[in-house]
Amino acid sequence: MTDTNDPTLVSWVESAHDPATDFPIQNLPFGVFRRAGTTEMPRVGVAIGDQILDLCACLGESLFDELQESPVALACASPSLNTLMSLGRPHWTMLRRQVSRVLRAGGSPSRYDRDRAARILVPQAEAELFVPAEIGDYSDFYASVSHATNVGSMFRPDAPLLPNYKWVPIGYHGRASSIVASGTPVRRPTGQRKGANDDAPVVGPSRSLDYELELGAFVGPGTPLGARIPIDEAESHLFGLALLNDWSARDLQAWEYQPLGPFLAKSFATTVSPWVVTLEALEPFRVPARTRAAGDPQPLPYLTSVIDQARGGYDITVEAWLRTARMREADAPAVRLSQGAFADMYWTVAQLLTHHASNGCNMRPGDLLGSGTISGDARDARGCLLELTWRGAEPVALPGGETRAFLEDGDEVILRAHCAREGTARIGFGECRGVVTAAV
Amino acid sequence: MTDTNDPTLVSWVESAHDPATDFPIQNLPFGVFRRAGTTEMPRVGVAIGDQILDLCACLGESLFDELQESPVALACASPSLNTLMSLGRPHWTMLRRQVSRVLRAGGSPSRYDRDRAARILVPQAEAELFVPAEIGDYSDFYASVSHATNVGSMFRPDAPLLPNYKWVPIGYHGRASSIVASGTPVRRPTGQRKGANDDAPVVGPSRSLDYELELGAFVGPGTPLGARIPIDEAESHLFGLALLNDWSARDLQAWEYQPLGPFLAKSFATTVSPWVVTLEALEPFRVPARTRAAGDPQPLPYLTSVIDQARGGYDITVEAWLRTARMREADAPAVRLSQGAFADMYWTVAQLLTHHASNGCNMRPGDLLGSGTISGDARDARGCLLELTWRGAEPVALPGGETRAFLEDGDEVILRAHCAREGTARIGFGECRGVVTAAV
Repeated sequence: MTDTNDPTLVSWVESAHDPATDFPIQNLPFGVFRRAGTTEMPRVGVAIGDQILDLCACLGESLFDELQESPVALACASPSLNTLMSLGRPHWTMLRRQVSRVLRAGGSPSRYDRDRAARILVPQAEAELFVPAEIGDYSDFYASVSHATNVGSMFRPDAPLLPNYKWVPIGYHGRASSIVASGTPVRRPTGQRKGANDDAPVVGPSRSLDYELELGAFVGPGTPLGARIPIDEAESHLFGLALLNDWSARDLQAWEYQPLGPFLAKSFATTVSPWVVTLEALEPFRVPARTRAAGDPQPLPYLTSVIDQARGGYDITVEAWLRTARMREADAPAVRLSQGAFADMYWTVAQLLTHHASNGCNMRPGDLLGSGTISGDARDARGCLLELTWRGAEPVALPGGETRAFLEDGDEVILRAHCAREGTARIGFGECRGVVTAAV
Repeated sequence: MTDTNDPTLVSWVESAHDPATDFPIQNLPFGVFRRAGTTEMPRVGVAIGDQILDLCACLGESLFDELQESPVALACASPSLNTLMSLGRPHWTMLRRQVSRVLRAGGSPSRYDRDRAARILVPQAEAELFVPAEIGDYSDFYASVSHATNVGSMFRPDAPLLPNYKWVPIGYHGRASSIVASGTPVRRPTGQRKGANDDAPVVGPSRSLDYELELGAFVGPGTPLGARIPIDEAESHLFGLALLNDWSARDLQAWEYQPLGPFLAKSFATTVSPWVVTLEALEPFRVPARTRAAGDPQPLPYLTSVIDQARGGYDITVEAWLRTARMREADAPAVRLSQGAFADMYWTVAQLLTHHASNGCNMRPGDLLGSGTISGDARDARGCLLELTWRGAEPVALPGGETRAFLEDGDEVILRAHCAREGTARIGFGECRGVVTAAV
């Protein structure tokens, strides 16, 4: 842990003191933004309270003196986080320290001119936020054993949890082109579905549109083809985490997924949140990896390390919220559908990355690894409607008399996550939002 | 068909007359190259006989007068084919016509100075050839019903061909980062495997390394998120075809693939051939789509069109060849393992693309759609060792007394394809090569 995590740190940006803010000075997540309504080149910023510190402008104002000659300067002037991600942890840490000093109240060296910094703050409400990196490859895992068990028991009642689950961090390749920024409307997909008693499939708008509450890990420097990533080096390749909604059409999925896995049921859209919370910011919230139950196998040696067992988990609370069109009209607030714990995942983030590279698959800066739906054993910890409503059989009751088996047009899904712990500053992930629009 | 397909056309490049060449003047495939051993910027070229016409240099020499002011000029100076692919068929056709005129013997307008063009030819033997496009997303299908039936009967004897196969063009998302150029050595992957009678999986180098004989289609202009591609417009989005070897570790695949499909069994390497044969060049080889057998369902309306049924197939012969280390030492030639027909595929290329975009998934220039292994009903038409040796049970006998159940270190796999038809010029795809190297 570095001094940037010190819970007593205070920023001169007033909104960063709001106890409800996701972005106190201890967080400092990175994103890519521009002033809304302009055609400015997108650039790198850090969220602080309800503002954004424009890192490119900080360099212009010489607020980061130590970085002027560093590759970090180029990275800050880039329209995506890929360059920064490629540089590696020593550079990330140095930049984080500089940003923290610029934003710190009192005692800062005089050269960190608060007035100059204040002039280049951009209110988040006036910014357009982008997918934070160019994502070359997006892989999605299935790391919640509660989710795998629930879904498995619906699709394969005779074999809910397959024999490989507790040995292999199961994952699949996702579609990178259709990853969209938070706030982008999500069009209901059309596709083939076939009921168990139907003779033939029909084509039409999905009737079982769902969200999936996930976190995604962005890869840092990456590896060349043929290299592996030892489990204890995995973190040096991980830049940070963001929220991820892996929208899913369950009816399309059930019909198409055998034998090669989900395809069109997922590839119509995946929403990612704009702010990437770095592993440095998450340092105070590290917890042991999930303990194996009696009878569960210990992970194979390439997936095992004392360090990862001791602190490979992250104590992150994740939440899915829903606001229907009728709720918006009635000015009613969103309602929480689930609250889960990322620490419950069967595999750690390091295990996911190490497994992914174990066959020599190369990793590139900005590659995204989704966790899979984050569910717990409790009903209100189920991270998608498929599980919450048990495939639609037990619809969720909403305020105002509405119910939902699956998503309807006009529904807005809002994912949130935060870390809170006695003696530390609460940090959050912002939001990952999307409104469902009608099929074409 | 345009005059560029005229079988009577003759080039002044002598090697283009060799009856065995893949690259007569009627072919004109596009690729990206530079002089071997240099650090020149890769640039766009066209294969002709055993030479490459440097399109960027053609512009410098004003050999393409009509194109100087066109976006095609920028595309030719690009280090990948993506820009050219993004422009669309009218531009592709115009460029093809210009290249054909520059390379044509006799009767060419005097401004197409043969001496100037001859000076800028680069021998293929002196060129380094690259993956022809930056591939944003790589999707792989499963379009050979013979392959699906053979593989299915090994992995799922009780249900070889799943109920969705004849309705849904089954596919999955592949890994884009590990697509490599022809000639790149392929490292044997390490991973988990588990025998049916083993209590636990073990980790080690794959013992069932295989190739897959495929063709890949490169996407042209592409579509925005939410758009679909009507079947009769699919071809306007397809630039051309190349050879593809989707290397597969069958032991890893058998253990990991349920329920989300192949992952590490495929993501360690995929080899693509350097020359992309355009749909224009393939025009004389169009054939009807595969006829549905009695009892097979007709494709759903979005996958059906009179035109696609009448000419959605391509009469392309595909071949897999093997040369072991011992054969190289003995200076023995490669041996052919299989010969199959692309026209046998259950789904046309247009059906694959239309299906892929039917849920609104966006397509970008340079996206790659693999056909899946091209197999036929005959034993010698099986496009991978898994099928040829029936999961290793019936090893293939090689000259010199060697046998192969799966690939061994030092084995070189060479994929080839060609089109030949009475009254047309024979055209070929060049080669897609890779030597297996030992696991780390």
